[in-house]
Amino acid sequence: MTTQRTWGGRFEATPAEAMLRLSASVDVDRTLWRDDIEGSIAHARGLHRAGVLTEDELVAIEEGLRKVGAEIERGTFFWDPSKEDVHMNIEARLIELIGPIGGKLHTGRSRNDQVATDLRLYTRRRCGEILEWLAALRGAILDQAVRHVDTLLPGYTHLQRAQPVRLAHHLLAWQEMLERDAGRVADARRRLNELPLGSGAIAGTTFPIDREQLAAELGFERPTRNSIDGTASRDFLMETVNALAILGVHLSRIGEELVLWSSQEFGFVELSDTFSTGSSMMPQKKNPDVAELVRGRSARVIGQAVALMVLEKGLPLGYNRDLQEDKPSLFDAVETTVTSLEALTGAIASATFRPDRMVSALRHGYVGATELADYLALRGVPFREAHEVIGRLVKLALQQGVGLEELPLTTLKEAHEAFDEGAYRVLDNELAVERRGLLGGPARARVLAEIEAARARLAG
Amino acid sequence: MTTQRTWGGRFEATPAEAMLRLSASVDVDRTLWRDDIEGSIAHARGLHRAGVLTEDELVAIEEGLRKVGAEIERGTFFWDPSKEDVHMNIEARLIELIGPIGGKLHTGRSRNDQVATDLRLYTRRRCGEILEWLAALRGAILDQAVRHVDTLLPGYTHLQRAQPVRLAHHLLAWQEMLERDAGRVADARRRLNELPLGSGAIAGTTFPIDREQLAAELGFERPTRNSIDGTASRDFLMETVNALAILGVHLSRIGEELVLWSSQEFGFVELSDTFSTGSSMMPQKKNPDVAELVRGRSARVIGQAVALMVLEKGLPLGYNRDLQEDKPSLFDAVETTVTSLEALTGAIASATFRPDRMVSALRHGYVGATELADYLALRGVPFREAHEVIGRLVKLALQQGVGLEELPLTTLKEAHEAFDEGAYRVLDNELAVERRGLLGGPARARVLAEIEAARARLAG
Amino acid sequence: MTTQRTWGGRFEATPAEAMLRLSASVDVDRTLWRDDIEGSIAHARGLHRAGVLTEDELVAIEEGLRKVGAEIERGTFFWDPSKEDVHMNIEARLIELIGPIGGKLHTGRSRNDQVATDLRLYTRRRCGEILEWLAALRGAILDQAVRHVDTLLPGYTHLQRAQPVRLAHHLLAWQEMLERDAGRVADARRRLNELPLGSGAIAGTTFPIDREQLAAELGFERPTRNSIDGTASRDFLMETVNALAILGVHLSRIGEELVLWSSQEFGFVELSDTFSTGSSMMPQKKNPDVAELVRGRSARVIGQAVALMVLEKGLPLGYNRDLQEDKPSLFDAVETTVTSLEALTGAIASATFRPDRMVSALRHGYVGATELADYLALRGVPFREAHEVIGRLVKLALQQGVGLEELPLTTLKEAHEAFDEGAYRVLDNELAVERRGLLGGPARARVLAEIEAARARLAG
Amino acid sequence: MTTQRTWGGRFEATPAEAMLRLSASVDVDRTLWRDDIEGSIAHARGLHRAGVLTEDELVAIEEGLRKVGAEIERGTFFWDPSKEDVHMNIEARLIELIGPIGGKLHTGRSRNDQVATDLRLYTRRRCGEILEWLAALRGAILDQAVRHVDTLLPGYTHLQRAQPVRLAHHLLAWQEMLERDAGRVADARRRLNELPLGSGAIAGTTFPIDREQLAAELGFERPTRNSIDGTASRDFLMETVNALAILGVHLSRIGEELVLWSSQEFGFVELSDTFSTGSSMMPQKKNPDVAELVRGRSARVIGQAVALMVLEKGLPLGYNRDLQEDKPSLFDAVETTVTSLEALTGAIASATFRPDRMVSALRHGYVGATELADYLALRGVPFREAHEVIGRLVKLALQQGVGLEELPLTTLKEAHEAFDEGAYRVLDNELAVERRGLLGGPARARVLAEIEAARARLAG
Repeated sequence: MTTQRTWGGRFEATPAEAMLRLSASVDVDRTLWRDDIEGSIAHARGLHRAGVLTEDELVAIEEGLRKVGAEIERGTFFWDPSKEDVHMNIEARLIELIGPIGGKLHTGRSRNDQVATDLRLYTRRRCGEILEWLAALRGAILDQAVRHVDTLLPGYTHLQRAQPVRLAHHLLAWQEMLERDAGRVADARRRLNELPLGSGAIAGTTFPIDREQLAAELGFERPTRNSIDGTASRDFLMETVNALAILGVHLSRIGEELVLWSSQEFGFVELSDTFSTGSSMMPQKKNPDVAELVRGRSARVIGQAVALMVLEKGLPLGYNRDLQEDKPSLFDAVETTVTSLEALTGAIASATFRPDRMVSALRHGYVGATELADYLALRGVPFREAHEVIGRLVKLALQQGVGLEELPLTTLKEAHEAFDEGAYRVLDNELAVERRGLLGGPARARVLAEIEAARARLAG
Repeated sequence: MTTQRTWGGRFEATPAEAMLRLSASVDVDRTLWRDDIEGSIAHARGLHRAGVLTEDELVAIEEGLRKVGAEIERGTFFWDPSKEDVHMNIEARLIELIGPIGGKLHTGRSRNDQVATDLRLYTRRRCGEILEWLAALRGAILDQAVRHVDTLLPGYTHLQRAQPVRLAHHLLAWQEMLERDAGRVADARRRLNELPLGSGAIAGTTFPIDREQLAAELGFERPTRNSIDGTASRDFLMETVNALAILGVHLSRIGEELVLWSSQEFGFVELSDTFSTGSSMMPQKKNPDVAELVRGRSARVIGQAVALMVLEKGLPLGYNRDLQEDKPSLFDAVETTVTSLEALTGAIASATFRPDRMVSALRHGYVGATELADYLALRGVPFREAHEVIGRLVKLALQQGVGLEELPLTTLKEAHEAFDEGAYRVLDNELAVERRGLLGGPARARVLAEIEAARARLAG
Repeated sequence: MTTQRTWGGRFEATPAEAMLRLSASVDVDRTLWRDDIEGSIAHARGLHRAGVLTEDELVAIEEGLRKVGAEIERGTFFWDPSKEDVHMNIEARLIELIGPIGGKLHTGRSRNDQVATDLRLYTRRRCGEILEWLAALRGAILDQAVRHVDTLLPGYTHLQRAQPVRLAHHLLAWQEMLERDAGRVADARRRLNELPLGSGAIAGTTFPIDREQLAAELGFERPTRNSIDGTASRDFLMETVNALAILGVHLSRIGEELVLWSSQEFGFVELSDTFSTGSSMMPQKKNPDVAELVRGRSARVIGQAVALMVLEKGLPLGYNRDLQEDKPSLFDAVETTVTSLEALTGAIASATFRPDRMVSALRHGYVGATELADYLALRGVPFREAHEVIGRLVKLALQQGVGLEELPLTTLKEAHEAFDEGAYRVLDNELAVERRGLLGGPARARVLAEIEAARARLAG
Repeated sequence: MTTQRTWGGRFEATPAEAMLRLSASVDVDRTLWRDDIEGSIAHARGLHRAGVLTEDELVAIEEGLRKVGAEIERGTFFWDPSKEDVHMNIEARLIELIGPIGGKLHTGRSRNDQVATDLRLYTRRRCGEILEWLAALRGAILDQAVRHVDTLLPGYTHLQRAQPVRLAHHLLAWQEMLERDAGRVADARRRLNELPLGSGAIAGTTFPIDREQLAAELGFERPTRNSIDGTASRDFLMETVNALAILGVHLSRIGEELVLWSSQEFGFVELSDTFSTGSSMMPQKKNPDVAELVRGRSARVIGQAVALMVLEKGLPLGYNRDLQEDKPSLFDAVETTVTSLEALTGAIASATFRPDRMVSALRHGYVGATELADYLALRGVPFREAHEVIGRLVKLALQQGVGLEELPLTTLKEAHEAFDEGAYRVLDNELAVERRGLLGGPARARVLAEIEAARARLAG
């Protein structure tokens, strides 16, 4: 065969090496091989139903494509960069295997609708995988929450100890964030679930292909409604990768907390040896690498989300070759996300939390100050005034190096006449948490109910 | 009053000017005033139901807040930067108006859940506005589509004339993109529609506030389920602004096409004088400023989407002051989007398309080449071979400076024996378009049906 | 006057409100007023030298422009959005003040080269301001370094205590980062210091203006060398804002450390009351707001850097109206940076570091492990083997709850025969630091020398 | 050897597969092999000078490292993911080849200063390569400029024909943009040219290594001045990739122009067959793929610049494992840039510009309108008035379908009494260009001089 390029007819020269390096995408887009073969088989069946392929031709093409797929799966397939992309590599091999009949496969479609279809198949498939990993991670978090319903720790704002909460309550905050992430990924998957095949290069094919049947066969909800949009739009990629970027932000926030909590200063968690590493120079180190890597990798996903939006902004319709460059960003975002989810799930499942260190942190945090202020407010003191009073008492306690509960009643009464003995009761951390029994609060019964509800939604 | 800061109790020094410049946000967050007052009134009612405020106190606070709102609306309100933010400005004025009772309003809430509530009210409200503008823009596009069902133009790929389509079909591609944008904005609005009020600073309030009633009163679907998540999470902002960024990419693509089509080279559209401007130096110029500005402004929305994701990545829970910086990005993204939608709607509604220029572009585009290839393919020639044959014919026609339809039949037959007289029929543009009657194609009946369906969905 | 728009000649309709909202930029670009007047005065002088303006006309225009400037400075100037931008507002007012002669000012220039000139004047001026603030911040850091040459603390990697260093050494790391930032800002300023005025709208002016004299008068190194490039390029903005974004990353890293060090867990620093704030709900809180805000605001600068790159990518030459949108991003990046630098300088200058807490952290960190490994290596044990040996000893010490220095010699000798009494000497933190006297190391003399050298470069 | 991990001493479990997938970087960082070996050889020499290695040991290590390098170059090296990164792969192989002596190579250094050194060597090397490609591209542009000094075309603003210029003048605008890009890359390379080796993990090494000699040996200007900064800072990567992102914006702008000019509507350029491709469906297409791909790929570089800034923002000092993730972004940005430069250079060198199409575009553009306005202004008419007058004349000419030069003198005089016969002379395009002889203008002599000057700077 003199050329492997589909567009060689009117050209006299062969592309220079430089151009090939720029335009060859097979190293990247071979990731789509499974989807390309799935889409091609469905297309061949569509062509057969449309009378373009005979039964025999269909059988030959379908068997040929399966053979190609098997070769790729086995690793015996030779990917040839001079054939540019995954589509041409597979088609050329098909023709090698079954002869010129293989050339009929491309009837009634263009690389434009072909690649749009492959991308949707791929993205849909990987979104499903990500949703499964998200469920696993949320499950691991809920399992730890069950174990730590009775573990108290300071809730932090501004990284300052603020108020006592249950560790299970804190972990439920992670679960909430990730549940919304799952919602976004599912929404993206639902919205992209339309079939562009049949859109041709821009204006649709003339062959009497039944696009609704084709869509059903490939599990799409419906065909895309406009051939120009079907070949030129990639908002389904932007939406998906944006959702992964937000998920990445959440994984990074969890990672940040694990890094903090792993420090000697906090000491709230010990990651299992499996998910930590040491230092090549400092023998005493146990580094929370899993948390750092997850935090760091989310930067890449944000970068890829940016790349996709920048890529498309300002392109006129329909297909422009710039769109070839959407693949590295998509694939990297997906792979990075899956790897992070997988490792973080294992890390959280195997992490050991340290109730002793958490309790110790509570003791030195003046986290009861809000309780005292509320105590005054409940006795009719305007909240702003109560707040000022307690602020002065905290300052006094700090100066004396004592806890609020160690200040004598006379001191309290000097600060405000509304104080009496009951003030000391509100400083108990367990009671403070239990007073917060409202919906969304850290009281024991609430937290147990939320764990159950979250488990039910996860199972549902 | 010695201080307007809520946290002044334990401090000895007053913040330096530099710190005030850094931390004062009232110039930005006053945008939230309407939502802050709405949220505060609902909160006061909740406090009243919880027995914290008497009937009289509630009435005083509610009337006071409405007075503050009226002052702001009239422009007579004095915004004081030394009172830092919108919340303190409103509260301080309330206390001025109704006395110390005003201080009770802040009972049972924190600035953390207050601002989270305000932001959700604001975002929900503005999403609604954006959806209305999106509907207007889609309506304007559909109106033009109705007018141009019978206008043919070349569809372009790689900015090269590719195949003939109807202008209405091209405009429907815009409508499809924007319809998905509306779906994303609506999804973001639905997902954020939960009430964080009652979450306190991080651990929830101890006052017996009925959060479900409060949520219902403010039109939220439900209260947030976790107090830490409710105060520390801003993925609802990331999701919303990411959706606006994708919308911005689409507006930019439409803008790019209007700029191209407004050029003397294309000449496919003339924007009305209202939506064009001239040059201060070159009297002959009529610049498509509306399209350029819309295209340019979408860069800002992408930048703001990045800013929000960067802002949150790596923050531990709960609230961190960094989050103050989410507001400029949110507000700018929303305002930029609304302004762009509004102007682009007017520009498209008043634009004059030029069927004559479009037809002229069709004539010189060899856009019938695919038809000829399909013609051969239908006669049993493998598509790859047909493609090569037509490629050679196009080259020949280019060399002779003629159209494909001007090549004699002998030339065609020399190129491939499968040609006969029927070949010339497939080169008619109108017929070429009509052959593409499949779902998503540009044939007249399909386009009419899609316009009707789109109108129905828009109305629905 | 019937119209304030410079391009009104050939138009019949007035722009709609929507278009005005989209296109009016005076609310933003009035920031350029000082630079616009400076540039206009120089331009008027150039026109006079070129014989276009008489001496009297020049005097009138120059005095008129100064009057306009004074009005703006006093705040009595009326900014009229219907006059679109800062340039038209100033020119219209000039004409009001001095009559039709004012109209001659725009001879030989276009808004395109005018705005390019204004932007360079503005950016050059603000870069100078940023460099001054950077010097102040570096000075404040060096002052603290001087105070803390003898304060030891653990250096952290992976947020784990790693090895002992001097606080001054750690602070010098900040100074190094910021010194490179200053280098980048200075490079950006140097590269942009070329005058575009005279480039006209795209092709240069026909008036015999001496651009080299004009450049010299405005303090530019030279005129731009190409009129198309001079009006269409904005890489000077991208470079400047990118440099500010990297600076923002560094400020954020410093901010992150201040937040960590302000936590009760670390307790390494106390920010002065001036640069902290409290909580509206929790009276005990002292939040490191300055550090959080600086950290958060750097996200905005990154977002603006993205916006500028996205804005320009894909625009053909020459000027496109999209470029109007570069101003909000530039101004916000500059203002955000200045405010952050100013506040952080004050915060660091007034911060109190806590040597007692730092020493306490050293004691419990096994930071001497590397010393022991090096000790073995110096005695001929291959480093990898030494590392393994010490790793086992650390594990043993952790299990026994003792420091490495508390392990008896017999234990050491069991671990490796190369140990003897000298091993205990290397565990002394002060000595460990002093052993690192190499260039770039934390030994006392090195640190003192580096402080001196940094001061000298700062003064130079 | 039981384990290939450097930090295995204190751990009981082996890392799970998931963790290995997350943390193994050898597939990416093997790109650094050449730099790693270069740095290791220099380090070994430093250890020898410091008395740590004997002459024989040095020889063995150096020969061993060269053997490893040869294996990698030949492709016979087995990269083992379980050995995590490029450094451990090389070191493990070294030990296999030369025995336990190889273990001494890591004495006095940490992976932290090792990888920082490798990254600087790599970045410095690739910056040099990029500068060479930039020179080649600028050379190709200047060659075309020489050919097209006498080719006139319309300069465009707002994509509207504005004023006539020389094609060489337009091409010089590209050269100016790229020359500044070269300046930025060179500045980045200069600033990063400091040696971090000797910084250890964070606090420097205790071995008496002469860092200045080491720096000189590796071609660095000096050692880094602070060990914490040397191991924790990556602004040299941010600066480099930001410079590449701006370069990418410029390549994208050039690409956009080539795409526009390749359209049938403009027809200003034909790319050689080597740098175009066809369509798999439409035989007549000749797509400007090279320009589209270059335009599209620059989005990726922007995305990687974002990823790097996001990655570092908010990390405390010193080294955090997040930094491992800087490599994929760096390598992709560098490779993408080199490939784009290489292909674009070939595309521009072999492109055929079409003076006939450019002249035709000039004829129908009313590009002489500014000339007429200037003509009136030179005769004492205030510019604003002149502009209005010409605006009315353009409108009249448009209505009559004629050029400005076809309007009779009586019409001109009716529009303004200052017109006379001389008006027609200023409408000649060649003369209009020649009137712009000022510095930076498109007149012939200026353009020739600028080409010469640019060539001289390029050669210098």
